[in-house]
Amino acid sequence: MKILLIGANGTIGSAVDKELSPRHEIVRIGRNSGDFQVDISDSASIRKLFEQTGKFDALVCAAGNVTFAPLSEMTEDSFALGLKDKLMGQVNLVLIGREYANDGASFTLTTGVLSHDPIYSGASAALVNGAIDSFVRAAAIELPRGLRVNSISPNVLVEAMGKYAPYFRGFKPVPAADVALAYAKSVEGLQTGQTFHI
Amino acid sequence: MKILLIGANGTIGSAVDKELSPRHEIVRIGRNSGDFQVDISDSASIRKLFEQTGKFDALVCAAGNVTFAPLSEMTEDSFALGLKDKLMGQVNLVLIGREYANDGASFTLTTGVLSHDPIYSGASAALVNGAIDSFVRAAAIELPRGLRVNSISPNVLVEAMGKYAPYFRGFKPVPAADVALAYAKSVEGLQTGQTFHI
Repeated sequence: MKILLIGANGTIGSAVDKELSPRHEIVRIGRNSGDFQVDISDSASIRKLFEQTGKFDALVCAAGNVTFAPLSEMTEDSFALGLKDKLMGQVNLVLIGREYANDGASFTLTTGVLSHDPIYSGASAALVNGAIDSFVRAAAIELPRGLRVNSISPNVLVEAMGKYAPYFRGFKPVPAADVALAYAKSVEGLQTGQTFHI
Repeated sequence: MKILLIGANGTIGSAVDKELSPRHEIVRIGRNSGDFQVDISDSASIRKLFEQTGKFDALVCAAGNVTFAPLSEMTEDSFALGLKDKLMGQVNLVLIGREYANDGASFTLTTGVLSHDPIYSGASAALVNGAIDSFVRAAAIELPRGLRVNSISPNVLVEAMGKYAPYFRGFKPVPAADVALAYAKSVEGLQTGQTFHI
């Protein structure tokens, strides 16, 4: 399979690369690194990406930004980044990407545990993750040509605990390599409309 | 209690009014009708509303628009209404409304069954509903002064089947009066961070 991996240089992206590259052709994409660059918050940048990559069999997005801030300090503007980047960025990868997707191709998006197990400062992340998990369920039943879409909802990563531990007390972190297995299940399996919690 | 009821003139709003008005003071609010008017997609309009209503003990939002369209016809723009109106409109009612909320006041938002039981043309509704259900869980743990926030996720209404039956084949519709009970549970009970499925 030809797999477009967005966020290839990140902690999850690197683990997905390691898991899938022995069996597939990986096109590595980043904001500033990789074979191609994309700003997922900009639909013109997304379209330009697909014009460069051409047709594909799977797209994995392991990228997306949200604002972390105490709810007491949040205004409407605090939600704009998450809506434009992690939420509509990933939705647009599906909406635009379907034109470039081969029959039976899959889209695998990234959400996270905060949708249902919230933490201090995580309101925007929760909102965006819940939105994507529900979008995936709805979009899956309407996609034509055997196209599939799933989301991966990881817990906090072992590799991120050095930085994030104070925010995730009591969470059992998962290794990025375990999270990568869920991406492999989405890409190489046949399920659609699912959220894989890992 | 002084209860602000947004969407008071709608099918759900009218049922909530009937359920709560024997026991509480209801301030009826609509886009064009009611004691006061608000456009929830406009944060300035929301702030003006609260300046008119003054302090309150409960806010119920039974309003919010999204675009229904086949996924095949949807672009980024098709999601804009839902993001601005039903999603950020309701989030902004909490973000701005908390300044006007008495200690222990509650916010009750409206989502819907499509977040987890999708239908043709429902991708934007699903996305918005999932976003709000997750926002509610996250916001609840950070709200100060005993403030609470829940969402009500109704099935299709008996009263709406005349118009919507072709889209909701196989769904068991619920009477608006039953849905109104869930709003009463949110307003008059003590739970927070919950989504009541009805």
